[in-house]
Amino acid sequence: METPCVFCDIVRGKVEADVIYHDAWVTAFRDIAPKAPCHVLVVPNRHVRDLTELGADGAELLGALLWAARTIVESEGLTQMGYRLVINAGIDGGQSVDHLHLHILGGRRFGWPPG
Amino acid sequence: METPCVFCDIVRGKVEADVIYHDAWVTAFRDIAPKAPCHVLVVPNRHVRDLTELGADGAELLGALLWAARTIVESEGLTQMGYRLVINAGIDGGQSVDHLHLHILGGRRFGWPPG
Repeated sequence: METPCVFCDIVRGKVEADVIYHDAWVTAFRDIAPKAPCHVLVVPNRHVRDLTELGADGAELLGALLWAARTIVESEGLTQMGYRLVINAGIDGGQSVDHLHLHILGGRRFGWPPG
Repeated sequence: METPCVFCDIVRGKVEADVIYHDAWVTAFRDIAPKAPCHVLVVPNRHVRDLTELGADGAELLGALLWAARTIVESEGLTQMGYRLVINAGIDGGQSVDHLHLHILGGRRFGWPPG
């Protein structure tokens, strides 16, 4: 039996989310606890915990992930003022869901360091 | 005449840096103002300001960027405790050098939000 995963359920349409992008590799939806005026998550359609778990098509999947982010950055109108992209992994990174996800944050100014 | 770019100069070996990784697409070196025990930057070998400037081979380049990050995360010993990956773009993102770069941060716990 598979471990339940809320992001897998969103990809499959079994859990409701504000989905704004979908392609053969990834799905994007708005974060339910936004940390900026624009806060979108991009996740691979298949379950993978993090980068180090990826196999032979890993680079292609990761390219698709960032390429989707590029598309969303443009559709969300973040190109001019800028944005921050973040991937958290493991305990130190503060990864909250064990399904690889890229945060797109925009609409305000972000400080440094990033957490 | 090209605009001077310190990251282009590092890629070409014209400016010294602690380079830890290099392949056909990207080069990685340690940040000179580290914000964590491990703080590495991964940059495309060719000059590109940000995601939105990428052309036809953009997805391939971005895949190579994150795939290199995966390799470095492993070689830096960050797999077990985790890490944070960050790309800043433009004014809101706090992009400090106008050459696309991915931050790999590890070796401590990172708070949320990420800046």
